[in-house]
Amino acid sequence: MATIQDIATRLNISKSTVSKALNGAPDVSETLRKTVLETAVELGYSRGTRRNEAKRLCLFIEHMNPSEPTDFGHDIVIGFRKLAEPAGFKVETVRLNKQIQQDNRYDEYMLQNNYAGAFFLGLSLSDLWLRELQTSRTPAVLLDNYVKGNPNTCYVGVDNNEGMDLAVGYLRSLGHRRIGYLSGGLGSFVNQSRYSAFFRALKRNGCPDERSLAGSDYLFSECLQTHLPRLLKQKVTAIICSHDLLAHTVMMHCLELGLRLPEDLSIIGFDDLPLCAYTIPPMTTIRQDRTQLGKSAFHALYSLLTGVPISTLLLHASLARRQSTGPAPAP
Amino acid sequence: MATIQDIATRLNISKSTVSKALNGAPDVSETLRKTVLETAVELGYSRGTRRNEAKRLCLFIEHMNPSEPTDFGHDIVIGFRKLAEPAGFKVETVRLNKQIQQDNRYDEYMLQNNYAGAFFLGLSLSDLWLRELQTSRTPAVLLDNYVKGNPNTCYVGVDNNEGMDLAVGYLRSLGHRRIGYLSGGLGSFVNQSRYSAFFRALKRNGCPDERSLAGSDYLFSECLQTHLPRLLKQKVTAIICSHDLLAHTVMMHCLELGLRLPEDLSIIGFDDLPLCAYTIPPMTTIRQDRTQLGKSAFHALYSLLTGVPISTLLLHASLARRQSTGPAPAP
Repeated sequence: MATIQDIATRLNISKSTVSKALNGAPDVSETLRKTVLETAVELGYSRGTRRNEAKRLCLFIEHMNPSEPTDFGHDIVIGFRKLAEPAGFKVETVRLNKQIQQDNRYDEYMLQNNYAGAFFLGLSLSDLWLRELQTSRTPAVLLDNYVKGNPNTCYVGVDNNEGMDLAVGYLRSLGHRRIGYLSGGLGSFVNQSRYSAFFRALKRNGCPDERSLAGSDYLFSECLQTHLPRLLKQKVTAIICSHDLLAHTVMMHCLELGLRLPEDLSIIGFDDLPLCAYTIPPMTTIRQDRTQLGKSAFHALYSLLTGVPISTLLLHASLARRQSTGPAPAP
Repeated sequence: MATIQDIATRLNISKSTVSKALNGAPDVSETLRKTVLETAVELGYSRGTRRNEAKRLCLFIEHMNPSEPTDFGHDIVIGFRKLAEPAGFKVETVRLNKQIQQDNRYDEYMLQNNYAGAFFLGLSLSDLWLRELQTSRTPAVLLDNYVKGNPNTCYVGVDNNEGMDLAVGYLRSLGHRRIGYLSGGLGSFVNQSRYSAFFRALKRNGCPDERSLAGSDYLFSECLQTHLPRLLKQKVTAIICSHDLLAHTVMMHCLELGLRLPEDLSIIGFDDLPLCAYTIPPMTTIRQDRTQLGKSAFHALYSLLTGVPISTLLLHASLARRQSTGPAPAP
């Protein structure tokens, strides 16, 4: 690991100038500051090497709103903070957007803002920084995203294979055989992962597994207008959805179409958001323990910060059984 | 979680008799002791519910000899103990064999011996207890074995996909295209996992990926006499092996055949055992950090004991580049 002295030597300036530049002191020119930052990144300097300093962690949030208790990210952020803060870390939240990613290189951003590590929630495959994370040096934990080959990153999430297997196995035990799948857009790692997990689960449970039994789209409306009718025409008796909000929309739409839930069609969501207990009927869903996900994310980040190269940390899924599922209708 | 009182009530005996039976006191008959144990397991009682008692953990070892510093398991056990003992756990080692598994149910064995949790090293798919672990109640962490659907078990290992990708990617950068694979018997989860990972890595790196490029057998001799000649006939310029000891045997055999390593053939192992630095030539191998694996196994077991349902914990692989690999020979 490079030190401030290494940067000073390389640029032939004093250590205190380097230090001032890294801390954004006003008496260092913007050009010099940028040169120092770039050199620091190039040499592999990171805040982790500076002692006696409160360590700062950054929570990058995209596509969610964790300040709302009903939001998917809410309990994850709480779980993360619950471990991070007593351990002496300062946790700051940054709403990530395209602009930040266009204007900054990830490693430079982290260094400039004195962050020792990052926890990313909601990153999608099209995010610019996801490419940088393949070679980045600042420890980062990604919820539901896997970066292969960079020892400074870790993927944290739920065991999607297990979750889909629980859902399909449960439907089988209720007599269902033709099971359909509706998914959000496949431009995200988690949707891709659940999509393949669904087909693996069909196979393992001896169900028909034609690709036509699944449909995916970024837009809910497309799922409802194109894919749902297609699945119903194929006589599916149950539908699993890639996440609860999609499942809820599908449930409401099916009720509008005059279908009885679960007598005519069983529906299963994924995530177990707080709303699932309050839908009509209450929704059966694949549960992930979001508080524990947040705590595990901190454990993973702390591991990366202390040199334990965790690559993947998955939590067990479970099935929350409610009333949106029932015995398969007689043929 | 059931208590001693629950067991006593069910059997209509006193709490102290239950307690004596669980602790193997001599004044309790063998028949009663067995009845108490079976009832305890049936009701879901576990040692984890007893307070103010030094917690005991069991290391089950099979197919390895961790007391030898050169053995694969050595550093894993040390890593595990390094965290477990300061945390107040007593760690005992039991050599697992068929007899123990035939004579005892896993949960009963754990209860009877007052173990709060287990760490399994070297379990293979044919082990009797592996089936019991699908529904067991006593927390267990398995090195290189995955049990789906039981929240009381966790799989710990190295990221085999990443490892194979690093190895194949490195060989590609050296100009190799036809790459072969030799594996130990596919009756173990880790060998199955590396086998599929190898073919995924070939595909991702744009290499030919016919199934005939791989061979596996429980016996080294079969790999050498049947599969190796078959691979060489197919003009592979490099061979990856499922583990270092197999790779070393292959290296020695190739030298006997008059092949020059790495001029005629590059060879890569898996694990980075201490011997790899001392083979002729020193062996390039996919490295797993065994001390950190042991530490991570303790973290996972501790998580299960405290209600954090970790399913999978993988460490990053890295590549130890030595002299058994070199540029592909001119065609």
